[in-house]
Amino acid sequence: MSIRLGIIGYGNLGKGVEIAVRDNPDLELKAVFTRRDPARVSILTTGVPVVHVDEVEQWKDKLDVVIICGGSATDLPVQTPKYAAMFNVIDSFDTHARIPEHFANVDAAASESGHVAVISCGWDPGMFSLNRVYANAILPDGKDYTFWGKGVSQGHSDAIRRIAGVKNAKQYTIPVPEALEAVRSGANPELTTRQKHTRECFVVLEEGADAARVEQEIKTMPNYFSDYDTTVHFISEEELLTNHSGMAHGGFVIRSGATGVNKEHKHIIEYSLKLDSNPEFTTNVLVACARAAYRMHAEGQKGCKTILDIPPAYLSAQSGEELRAHLL
Amino acid sequence: MSIRLGIIGYGNLGKGVEIAVRDNPDLELKAVFTRRDPARVSILTTGVPVVHVDEVEQWKDKLDVVIICGGSATDLPVQTPKYAAMFNVIDSFDTHARIPEHFANVDAAASESGHVAVISCGWDPGMFSLNRVYANAILPDGKDYTFWGKGVSQGHSDAIRRIAGVKNAKQYTIPVPEALEAVRSGANPELTTRQKHTRECFVVLEEGADAARVEQEIKTMPNYFSDYDTTVHFISEEELLTNHSGMAHGGFVIRSGATGVNKEHKHIIEYSLKLDSNPEFTTNVLVACARAAYRMHAEGQKGCKTILDIPPAYLSAQSGEELRAHLL
Repeated sequence: MSIRLGIIGYGNLGKGVEIAVRDNPDLELKAVFTRRDPARVSILTTGVPVVHVDEVEQWKDKLDVVIICGGSATDLPVQTPKYAAMFNVIDSFDTHARIPEHFANVDAAASESGHVAVISCGWDPGMFSLNRVYANAILPDGKDYTFWGKGVSQGHSDAIRRIAGVKNAKQYTIPVPEALEAVRSGANPELTTRQKHTRECFVVLEEGADAARVEQEIKTMPNYFSDYDTTVHFISEEELLTNHSGMAHGGFVIRSGATGVNKEHKHIIEYSLKLDSNPEFTTNVLVACARAAYRMHAEGQKGCKTILDIPPAYLSAQSGEELRAHLL
Repeated sequence: MSIRLGIIGYGNLGKGVEIAVRDNPDLELKAVFTRRDPARVSILTTGVPVVHVDEVEQWKDKLDVVIICGGSATDLPVQTPKYAAMFNVIDSFDTHARIPEHFANVDAAASESGHVAVISCGWDPGMFSLNRVYANAILPDGKDYTFWGKGVSQGHSDAIRRIAGVKNAKQYTIPVPEALEAVRSGANPELTTRQKHTRECFVVLEEGADAARVEQEIKTMPNYFSDYDTTVHFISEEELLTNHSGMAHGGFVIRSGATGVNKEHKHIIEYSLKLDSNPEFTTNVLVACARAAYRMHAEGQKGCKTILDIPPAYLSAQSGEELRAHLL
C-alpha cells in the first residue's frame, strides 16, 4: 500500500512535489489543494483532483501526509500549525532566524493533534544543516564554512527591482574561488563577507532611466550589496528572459578541523550541491521527508521534527536490510 | 553527568578513541581493556586504569558505552556479540560483504541483553554510507559513484609484502582526476575499475631481489592489481619510513541524478573527505556514535543499529534547541 500524499499550494514548489512523486513508487498523490478557483488550476497528473483549500479538512482520513508548499514570509507561519492540527505535514520554512519560533508553534499544534510535522526541509535549511551537524559532531575542534551559489538570490533580485528606473533584474550570488581554496587547504581563514561571495546583477532599465545612478544605488545598498564586490550588467529584457530565467543553484558546506594529541592532523569535510533546478531539488527532499513522517507517525511519534531528528533510513524507500546490503 | 566510556583494545583505533574523548566534555574515559599484560600497556590519560579484558564483566554497572577497537577480520565478529551481551557497544566493522551476517549476530545478542550496539561506524562504512543513502533518497533517478584516496590501502600494502624479495611496501589508491571530472559534469559515465583508480606502490627490496620480477608480480596480481594501472617505485627503507608512514586518506561520494517532467534538470551531490589521519577521523565518528548509543538506550531502544538508524541530532553534544538555533 502506498503512502497517500496531498499538496497544499500549486506554485513552483507544489509542481515540483507533483513531479517528484513520480520517481517514488511507494508514494501516491491523492489531491492538490489551492486557494484559487480549482476549475482554473490544471495540474500535470491526470485523475488527481484539484480541491479548494477550504475543503481540506474533509480529507483528514484520506491522506497520510500533506506537503505545504507556501512561502516562508507569511504563508507557512500560519499554514503549518493550522494543518498540523489535521494531518502529518511537511514544510520548507527557510527563514533561519525564525525557526525556533516556528518550531514552537508547530510543535504545540502537532503534539496536541498527535501528528508529526517536519519543518524546514530542503537544502538550506535541510541537507546543508545535516552536514553542519554531522561535521560538528565528528570534528568538535574545527570551523564551519557555508558558501552559496552560483545561483539566483530571489531576495536580492527583488531588492534591485524596487529601485526607480529598473524594469527587471536577476542577481547571482557567486562564491569567491580563492576563499573556497583557502578553506579547502585547511588554513581556517577568517573571511569577511566581501571575501566569501561576489554579486553579479543583470538589470533591464526602464526607458530613459539613468544607468549610472541605478548602478550606484545597487552597489551602495546597505545589507544587500554594500558589503560585497558587485558587478552590474545592463541588458535587454529579451536577453534576461533568454539567458537568465533558469533556477540553478548550489553551494558548499565545509568543516575544517583538527585531531591528535597536539592537534597535528587536519581534516576537511566538504559537501556540495550543483543543482539545475533549485525548486525541484528542494521538493525531492520534501517528498523523502514525507515518507519519514509517515513512518515516524506509524511508530507513535508526534510533534514537530526537523531533518536532524529523522533516522536517515526513514527517508529511503529501501528496507533496512537492503540499505545494509547495498549502500552501507 | 558525563557518559562513561570504556575502550576494548589499545592499538591505533583505541588510542584514537582516547584522544577523541578529550574534545568531547560530555564523555569520560573510565577504563581501557587489553588482552596484553595491563602492567605493560601505558596510555596517554593519567588516572584511567588499564585492565585485563578478562575482567571487563566486573565493569558492567560502571560503563555506559564500550567502544570495541578490534579488527574486522577475526576480532569483531567474536567480540561485538560477546560484549553486546554486557554493554552498549560500538564497533567499526568494515568488511562490507559480511555486514548483514555481523548485524544479525550482534542484533541477537543486543536484543537479548537489552543493549544498543552500533556497528560499522567510521567513514566507509559510516559517513560515506550516510551520504549514499541520503543522496539515493533525494535523487531516486540517478547513479552513485564512490572514489577512495588518495590514501594508503592496508590490504594492498600487505599483498605486496607477501611477494618473495619484498622487505616492506606501501600502496596508495588514487582516484583518476578525469573520471572524477566526468562524474561531476553530470555525464553519468560507465567507468571500469581501471578508469576509476590508479595504484602507486613504494617498495623496499630485500638484498639481491630481482626488481623486474617483483614489479611484474605486483602488476599482474589478480584482484589486487591486474585490473588497475599500477606504478611501482623501488625506494630505500629509510625513504619509506620518512616519506610514507603517514595515515592520510579520503575519498568522494557523488550521486548524479535528474528531475523534471522530461528529466531535463541535472543535479550533482558530492561529499568528500580529506583526512590527515584515517584512524583518528574514524575514532571521532566512533565517539559520536557512542553518545548516540547512550541516548538511544536511555529512551528504551535495544538491538543492533547502524549510523543509518541514528537521528543525526543524537550524535551531537548540543541540544535540539541549540542545533535548531545555530546549525539548522
